[in-house]
Amino acid sequence: MKVTVSRKAHFNAAHRLYRKDWSFEKNDEIFGKCNNPNFHGHNYELIVSVTGEIDEDTGYVIDMKILKDIIKSEVEDAFDHKNLNIEVPEFKELNPTAENIVVVIYNKMRAKLSLNLDLEITLYETPRNFVTYSGN
Amino acid sequence: MKVTVSRKAHFNAAHRLYRKDWSFEKNDEIFGKCNNPNFHGHNYELIVSVTGEIDEDTGYVIDMKILKDIIKSEVEDAFDHKNLNIEVPEFKELNPTAENIVVVIYNKMRAKLSLNLDLEITLYETPRNFVTYSGN
Amino acid sequence: MKVTVSRKAHFNAAHRLYRKDWSFEKNDEIFGKCNNPNFHGHNYELIVSVTGEIDEDTGYVIDMKILKDIIKSEVEDAFDHKNLNIEVPEFKELNPTAENIVVVIYNKMRAKLSLNLDLEITLYETPRNFVTYSGN
Amino acid sequence: MKVTVSRKAHFNAAHRLYRKDWSFEKNDEIFGKCNNPNFHGHNYELIVSVTGEIDEDTGYVIDMKILKDIIKSEVEDAFDHKNLNIEVPEFKELNPTAENIVVVIYNKMRAKLSLNLDLEITLYETPRNFVTYSGN
Amino acid sequence: MKVTVSRKAHFNAAHRLYRKDWSFEKNDEIFGKCNNPNFHGHNYELIVSVTGEIDEDTGYVIDMKILKDIIKSEVEDAFDHKNLNIEVPEFKELNPTAENIVVVIYNKMRAKLSLNLDLEITLYETPRNFVTYSGN
Amino acid sequence: MKVTVSRKAHFNAAHRLYRKDWSFEKNDEIFGKCNNPNFHGHNYELIVSVTGEIDEDTGYVIDMKILKDIIKSEVEDAFDHKNLNIEVPEFKELNPTAENIVVVIYNKMRAKLSLNLDLEITLYETPRNFVTYSGN
Repeated sequence: MKVTVSRKAHFNAAHRLYRKDWSFEKNDEIFGKCNNPNFHGHNYELIVSVTGEIDEDTGYVIDMKILKDIIKSEVEDAFDHKNLNIEVPEFKELNPTAENIVVVIYNKMRAKLSLNLDLEITLYETPRNFVTYSGN
Repeated sequence: MKVTVSRKAHFNAAHRLYRKDWSFEKNDEIFGKCNNPNFHGHNYELIVSVTGEIDEDTGYVIDMKILKDIIKSEVEDAFDHKNLNIEVPEFKELNPTAENIVVVIYNKMRAKLSLNLDLEITLYETPRNFVTYSGN
Repeated sequence: MKVTVSRKAHFNAAHRLYRKDWSFEKNDEIFGKCNNPNFHGHNYELIVSVTGEIDEDTGYVIDMKILKDIIKSEVEDAFDHKNLNIEVPEFKELNPTAENIVVVIYNKMRAKLSLNLDLEITLYETPRNFVTYSGN
Repeated sequence: MKVTVSRKAHFNAAHRLYRKDWSFEKNDEIFGKCNNPNFHGHNYELIVSVTGEIDEDTGYVIDMKILKDIIKSEVEDAFDHKNLNIEVPEFKELNPTAENIVVVIYNKMRAKLSLNLDLEITLYETPRNFVTYSGN
Repeated sequence: MKVTVSRKAHFNAAHRLYRKDWSFEKNDEIFGKCNNPNFHGHNYELIVSVTGEIDEDTGYVIDMKILKDIIKSEVEDAFDHKNLNIEVPEFKELNPTAENIVVVIYNKMRAKLSLNLDLEITLYETPRNFVTYSGN
Repeated sequence: MKVTVSRKAHFNAAHRLYRKDWSFEKNDEIFGKCNNPNFHGHNYELIVSVTGEIDEDTGYVIDMKILKDIIKSEVEDAFDHKNLNIEVPEFKELNPTAENIVVVIYNKMRAKLSLNLDLEITLYETPRNFVTYSGN
């Protein structure tokens, strides 16, 4: 009897899409106005979904307070009000597209959760664009 | 050619998270302020998703009016403006966590739907916390 | 140059609509299923709107961190996961309709804000029903 | 490492649910007020979800600008401010239920996307009713 | 002590923007694709806001059940799943722009409410376009 | 018969809250993590509300296409995917708080609209924080 438990969270950050090993022209061609060297930014909205058996004692798949604390330490404290390119080590050499950010968040969360639990991360870059990753 | 048809519904209810066979202290440790003996409450928002073949005659997977009526009798009439712990028989001995509620709703809806149709229930306990169950 | 600054917040609570000095029948006639003696509940969503001059030094009408702290102490800590009828002193003798709750919240917030600032409170009892009060 | 990238879009249209080969009475019995011969209409909201490997060069599964352009030409230009029954060729002989519309949109989008990419379409007929199709 | 009580409702309808006394070309120039002679349609979302004194007996400005019933008879039954141009008498000679619809709804609701109560109507034609009228 | 017509729009931008004439320590004390010298960012959501008489010929207060074009040239083209502090002239010497941004947007839009029309701007900095300015 596996149930999925989901929790919403959010953080604000600046970023720039580009590759250091490409010319400005090539970055501009591929990333358009997202390649602005002065950065732009987003309110990232996050859904963390954890799937597992309901614990018969508590009626919980996972205690929401514990999940909230892991999201805070792994995602909010690490990314909120940050410049992703400059201040978040995972993006020193990795282009902070929504796709790459969702994989980084998945890997950070995955390392803190029991292997009995499946994990899926959905990340809204804007209210109209979002990405989902579940480790496959 | 299987399509999933989803319908939103809602109900308001009071509940308390605790186990009768645990001390107040243990309930407090595990369930925190959700263990308030005077109850607290939620606007539960529900998404009922039914998957099946499109009927060639009607172009429907299921007539939305029929689905709406089943949701009304099985969920809204049974839970709306109720105290889940006291007034809903399924929770007499079952802790009304979001996980347990979504399984109870699934089982009630499942019994009223053709076995040709797959079913998934998503239940929002708050706009930020939700659970999903599809019978596996 | 007056700007209005708004902040969203939320709390969950149980309540019952009734008057102690009315018969159960009369309460039932007026308040219907909201008169359930075992209580029901809501996720209350709140918008606190503060209007005033922009401070030339900071560019703020009010520091959002200060507003957030006042909302936390006056509303969230006082109402969240509570039974409004039993545990919130303001409703000992006052029927906790959305209208009365929004006036109580207004008065509590008003007492903590500078008189240079205008205040308006919007309270969603459900996603479909809400009330607004600005002290007039 | 497969990630799903989703993009929201929308169009407004009129439609009528009925079959030409049924009597008005039978259409009325099955489709109720949706069988209004003068038509009614909806704001259709669309989510197009594309799943594939992250391109190592760009960090994209698909360039969102390209996806946006395909949605525009295949869905928005074809359906927006149209009468689906009269003006959209796919519904000349096909009842424009939400289920049939989502399959038509899927097929139009599928033809424009690389076969390395999986596709899922979610279509909101109203904020409370929606359908999902992924080609199976 | 005046409080505003708001209730959300909705209806779906088809319409066409044009004037019978203008040429097709002039209608096309002014109303563009909204002048489609085969109609298009919307999910109209409505907020009805009623302002008045809190009744000391009930704690209500207006009984929400009464307001819901008036909205149903005056707006939903009159407009839902209708073609506004053809089937709604108010638009026989009046162009059903959002502005004109909101005034019609206001006038219908105003006639059913006590003069002690102020009224404001907000009408969403799409999630991105809306109009508001309060009788002034 | 004055009706208010509202249109939603959006832009993404990076910013930093600080004053050049204050020490880093003072900026940090007042603006906290918003003073990050590497910038952070937001998806700004905008509501432009225009109030005026309904034109008897068209049934419009203002043609939505015209309003959309003014929002595009004055706000979206000027702010989207920009660093507000570095690239938007209005904020060269003005701290880009939500309050100051909403006044700048108001002034830019005001200059393009007929004086018969009243204007109000609402700006969401995050889904939880927003500001409103109407020129008073």
